[in-house]
Amino acid sequence: MHKDTFIQQLVHLLPRIRAQKPLLHHITNQVVMNDTANMTLALGALPVMAHASEEVEEMVSQAGALVLNIGTLVPAQIEAMLRAGKRANALDIPIILDPVGAGATRLRTESALRLLSELKITVLRGNAAEIGTLIGVESETRGVESISVAVERPVLVQQAARMFGCTVAITGAQDVISNGERLATVGNGHPLLASITGSGCMATTVIGAFLAVERDAWQAAIAGLLVMGVAGEQAASTAAGPGTFRAHLFDAVAALEPEALLQAQKVSFAS
Amino acid sequence: MHKDTFIQQLVHLLPRIRAQKPLLHHITNQVVMNDTANMTLALGALPVMAHASEEVEEMVSQAGALVLNIGTLVPAQIEAMLRAGKRANALDIPIILDPVGAGATRLRTESALRLLSELKITVLRGNAAEIGTLIGVESETRGVESISVAVERPVLVQQAARMFGCTVAITGAQDVISNGERLATVGNGHPLLASITGSGCMATTVIGAFLAVERDAWQAAIAGLLVMGVAGEQAASTAAGPGTFRAHLFDAVAALEPEALLQAQKVSFAS
Amino acid sequence: MHKDTFIQQLVHLLPRIRAQKPLLHHITNQVVMNDTANMTLALGALPVMAHASEEVEEMVSQAGALVLNIGTLVPAQIEAMLRAGKRANALDIPIILDPVGAGATRLRTESALRLLSELKITVLRGNAAEIGTLIGVESETRGVESISVAVERPVLVQQAARMFGCTVAITGAQDVISNGERLATVGNGHPLLASITGSGCMATTVIGAFLAVERDAWQAAIAGLLVMGVAGEQAASTAAGPGTFRAHLFDAVAALEPEALLQAQKVSFAS
Repeated sequence: MHKDTFIQQLVHLLPRIRAQKPLLHHITNQVVMNDTANMTLALGALPVMAHASEEVEEMVSQAGALVLNIGTLVPAQIEAMLRAGKRANALDIPIILDPVGAGATRLRTESALRLLSELKITVLRGNAAEIGTLIGVESETRGVESISVAVERPVLVQQAARMFGCTVAITGAQDVISNGERLATVGNGHPLLASITGSGCMATTVIGAFLAVERDAWQAAIAGLLVMGVAGEQAASTAAGPGTFRAHLFDAVAALEPEALLQAQKVSFAS
Repeated sequence: MHKDTFIQQLVHLLPRIRAQKPLLHHITNQVVMNDTANMTLALGALPVMAHASEEVEEMVSQAGALVLNIGTLVPAQIEAMLRAGKRANALDIPIILDPVGAGATRLRTESALRLLSELKITVLRGNAAEIGTLIGVESETRGVESISVAVERPVLVQQAARMFGCTVAITGAQDVISNGERLATVGNGHPLLASITGSGCMATTVIGAFLAVERDAWQAAIAGLLVMGVAGEQAASTAAGPGTFRAHLFDAVAALEPEALLQAQKVSFAS
Repeated sequence: MHKDTFIQQLVHLLPRIRAQKPLLHHITNQVVMNDTANMTLALGALPVMAHASEEVEEMVSQAGALVLNIGTLVPAQIEAMLRAGKRANALDIPIILDPVGAGATRLRTESALRLLSELKITVLRGNAAEIGTLIGVESETRGVESISVAVERPVLVQQAARMFGCTVAITGAQDVISNGERLATVGNGHPLLASITGSGCMATTVIGAFLAVERDAWQAAIAGLLVMGVAGEQAASTAAGPGTFRAHLFDAVAALEPEALLQAQKVSFAS
């Protein structure tokens, strides 16, 4: 497909979210719950946060996508994630996993790997060190921050996509997205995104919303990261620092139109 | 009582909150804890969030009202709610219940009904589908969002108030409030309230603050929803989207005066 | 040391945080997790929230400081705090404790005292009633708010510092800081700080960041409270209420420079 046609399609997934208002079931961390719920609403989708084992299977059955995020992990939460994830798999509901802090502790690394092995994950989104850790590449993290990784990111993302058999998105100054065959980069974004907590988690949520309306996971991931990047650029242009940036980010996402995405997009492809 | 006199009384409950600074003990959901704490402070009341079974009875004894919200329910939390609620009942401290997501899962529906049956609830506040579910009327929810309900809201709210023997408030574009005998509607508000997470939960908190200073629960509920509605209108007038709206909502509540409520109010009554 | 030289040193700790980017491991309350993570980032440090017993020892080993906050305490969290704290002590990593709500319930009072007895705490930061309760001085709290305390704050803070053998900071309209020998007061701040939830918890986090780059705990605590106070003044000057104040507070912290701290500082000393 011609690049322009592809991107035209991509940016028109956004009004599809607003029209369909899919439910995004989050089993996620306590730090960013409010931010990811507000990001879901800003996109035009509906959030629900539910993590009790007693209800996750029922809840996920109503969802357009399941968002799993291990940012404030406790073992009981992994059980709930597995129950919800197995039901999602049975119902063919896409799952996105955010392995927050993989590499920082064994609990996080092993839990992320367990979810990747026992569930069919549709998209895995993390920073370079988290993804590097999960495929056994030498990586350094500080808490949930990526410090360094031994392999170039375009190579890393493709290796991970092939190893896990899913779409992988590595975010940073430049985002890279691979489904094992195709590679895309999204150059949009702004340093202020790194100055607020949860911008990675919000990117995961945004991709989740696109997965609910587009079954090609690679396209959904590119579209999601394009939206986060362009909204970040717009929010930064009116912000006086991280506090106002955060408020403006929700404003920008809610007001985004396909035309603005088209004009601002810095998407490129390699094969 | 003449309508104007009644509303005059209502709007002067707001300075009473600021003078008395009642403590609102919340056992609530993790998504909106920060928002409901900030809303409590914006009103001039004092928030405390405490959900450990070991301390809830002691904490609620100091409170002017108890706010129960099942938005991120786990079974241990229901036990804490029952302990706190029984102590509140014994001490004649009003309780407001927000049955977030009733109808979405059995855990939520059954837990809400259990709280309504084992505790004397003063006010029940929810959306139409949540309240419909609880009284056995055909309702459709998507996660925590009301999609449809088979009965008109003024009828629904009165049925619910009679069935549970308490004041019931159903919020939406138009709020309806009944104590089983009297019916009021509050037409204030703005669509941006539905664009942020927790606006319903914040409305519950606001009613809780009014309950702490006014024992007529129907009046307290009307006053609370009037404050949320008018503050929402004011915040919307200066907002550029959901992110700035949320910040401005707290500013508006903190600056609200009885005179502004009087001028903006769209309260009406039926019998 | 001459006072001017001392304050010159103090304000230059801020760029040291930005240069070193220490990791702050928080085991903290659910109300303010997002705020304290964003405050950590605004300072230039890195936050991580991790409370599972299975991972806290591993996580704290990477940290520049450990922040303990009992604001939404459950017993399992105390166990995690003890495990993390013992490891931090073994590795000589400073610990700051925020005894939120000590005095409001036995669970909170006893848990705070247990942490103070079983761990070597570097800094204890609370309001007057919390600190008063912990050293057995008659105090009145309402939830997590200090209502009154029977002893003057400069006396109280010195008594507490001597009793617990650590630096103690009591915040309020005027902050007092003692290490048992030296006493400092910080007169910066603004009433709007008391109008948002978590400003005390954020002050604790800020001190934690200074502890990670300065081993003199008394200096770190003064520097931290100076930063919060001056940022609060700056944020208030452009805020329209508590909602915009909160956003501007993060902007102000991120933009603060030593020179502005020097000009605005209201630090004084007694011996």
